[in-house]
Amino acid sequence: MSRYWSDIVHRLTPYVPGEQPALAHPVKLNTNENPYPPSPRVLAAIREELGPAGESLRRYPDPTAQKLRETVAAYHAIRADQVFAGNGSDEVLALTFQALLKHDKPLLFPDITYSFYPTYARLFDVEYQTIPLDDAFAINVDDYAVANSGILFPNPNAPTGRPLPLADIERLLQKNPDSAVVIDEAYVDFGAQSAVTLIDRYPNLLVVQTVSKSRSLAGMRVGFAFGNVELIDALNRVKDSFNSYPLDRLAQVAACAAYEDDEWFRDTCAKVIASRERLAAGLTELGFDVVPSAANLLFARHNGHDAATLLSRLREREIIVRHFNAPRIDQHLRISVGTDAECDVLLDALRAILNA
Amino acid sequence: MSRYWSDIVHRLTPYVPGEQPALAHPVKLNTNENPYPPSPRVLAAIREELGPAGESLRRYPDPTAQKLRETVAAYHAIRADQVFAGNGSDEVLALTFQALLKHDKPLLFPDITYSFYPTYARLFDVEYQTIPLDDAFAINVDDYAVANSGILFPNPNAPTGRPLPLADIERLLQKNPDSAVVIDEAYVDFGAQSAVTLIDRYPNLLVVQTVSKSRSLAGMRVGFAFGNVELIDALNRVKDSFNSYPLDRLAQVAACAAYEDDEWFRDTCAKVIASRERLAAGLTELGFDVVPSAANLLFARHNGHDAATLLSRLREREIIVRHFNAPRIDQHLRISVGTDAECDVLLDALRAILNA
Repeated sequence: MSRYWSDIVHRLTPYVPGEQPALAHPVKLNTNENPYPPSPRVLAAIREELGPAGESLRRYPDPTAQKLRETVAAYHAIRADQVFAGNGSDEVLALTFQALLKHDKPLLFPDITYSFYPTYARLFDVEYQTIPLDDAFAINVDDYAVANSGILFPNPNAPTGRPLPLADIERLLQKNPDSAVVIDEAYVDFGAQSAVTLIDRYPNLLVVQTVSKSRSLAGMRVGFAFGNVELIDALNRVKDSFNSYPLDRLAQVAACAAYEDDEWFRDTCAKVIASRERLAAGLTELGFDVVPSAANLLFARHNGHDAATLLSRLREREIIVRHFNAPRIDQHLRISVGTDAECDVLLDALRAILNA
Repeated sequence: MSRYWSDIVHRLTPYVPGEQPALAHPVKLNTNENPYPPSPRVLAAIREELGPAGESLRRYPDPTAQKLRETVAAYHAIRADQVFAGNGSDEVLALTFQALLKHDKPLLFPDITYSFYPTYARLFDVEYQTIPLDDAFAINVDDYAVANSGILFPNPNAPTGRPLPLADIERLLQKNPDSAVVIDEAYVDFGAQSAVTLIDRYPNLLVVQTVSKSRSLAGMRVGFAFGNVELIDALNRVKDSFNSYPLDRLAQVAACAAYEDDEWFRDTCAKVIASRERLAAGLTELGFDVVPSAANLLFARHNGHDAATLLSRLREREIIVRHFNAPRIDQHLRISVGTDAECDVLLDALRAILNA
């Protein structure tokens, strides 16, 4: 607290990201990172940009990330002016709150969802209303038939991993033509259907993606929004009033190269999906209820064991998973899908803990 | 314009950064980049972080940039909790507007200064009042004796390069104990006195710096704020409500390495300063009035030749400088200090143009 603070600072509840533990060899299954490294082309592209002396680093990057946006647009068979690039999907979401979600009527999002959403809403003074997931943690789009100026959720949802069929999203768009509808597809590549294919037909649809999960580049901070040029223009206007150059030179070439290696991307996603199904079976066998997931994470509870206790028992073994002390989900653990070997370490540890 | 835009978007006047020309070999003296590459240690640090397979890039970076803040704190002989790190000093300034400069009384800044300031003010709805520079483009701190909640200017000022003595800044701090006083030191390393030495004595002082100019890392997007822990805390609260990880892994290690090579830094600055003095003499000889500069730029006008015309004549020769079509300065050119060879190309071209 300080008299120099702007009023808004007193009202914030900053987001707390998952721990980056200082352990030597943790089994780190808490921040939904990809267990596989990025494409070798990423490394080659960074090395090429660096050259023998890092000469280009003295120059500002392209503030519009033109080549990157063109590459990603080609990948999705859309136009570069339908693509916005930002410093991770977190920055893209923040700019979206400011540019598209502050109106007289409330923004709607699920009661159980990415916990950064209410934080953004407070920062930008955006009124919001939460809509409960059903008892199976599913989004029912008919529940969103209340007055609103915007609707936002991840697909698959976080922290549950549960996907929503594209037909439901299209129905939501049709029923809310005056609202900005933002689909946060951070996890979409692990088995859900992307709404990017709908942006030409729905001028109110914005789709947000990231290279942090399926393209193994959490360390490089690149995210995107896809939508009608008017929505992208709003994001550009806010971005260019905030920070002209949010993506450095190496981030731009790294993300570009990741999109140019489709085989690596598909192989990596397929391996993660296979490990997820194997891990889900293992957890079910140990007595966990596992939410059906199309993400690189599983959301699971054990009826006989307290989640916070399991969390700390696992941590004693340097296995890090995530727990949210929040209504309806305080008995669940969110487990990132690692390699099969990491998943086995987790399953063995859980078996020992449950039988102790 | 779109019905989906938040109201604020309609009122923005986005900042337009200096052109990154698509010419093959421009003499690029328009965005105040350093003509010399970063320290070889920067390249070594990036390569070490990448390792043989870029393995670490799949992991999120440290959201607090702890090692980088510790390194920069040690450099300035302050504590790490007095350091905030952001995505270039532009992002640091944006967060500062939101965290510390929005109050009932206006923010004051010079009428001629970094043109991003009014853009930030509009984005965050910060009331401001401009204080005219004197006829020699100097800041007179006594002119700031009007009701305010904050005072902001660069030292050296932009786009003039003119420095303000530290004693004047201290006098300003003493006269405005209830205001946040923000000194934007993007160019300080080229000959002005830093106010970082004052942060322990003035709880209302925030000093902003960048690696973009004196450390040759414009391409990597790293900036800092230094101040009392309460001010830094406000910036962290806003940052953690906006984007947890604005600095990617490579940006963090690159900036760290740049601070660890003090010899490279001092040599580079000395070379730029020597070239600046040589260029200033050359411009004066050609009949330009040159504002005294302690930055890596010169702000100059020729009484016999229109600035916009000179700009386009130079551009025909692929020499890019910057011109601001703004009151009081529309007859000036802002010229970044390049190598002596680049400065000679500019001087030769101007000589030819003026004598044509």
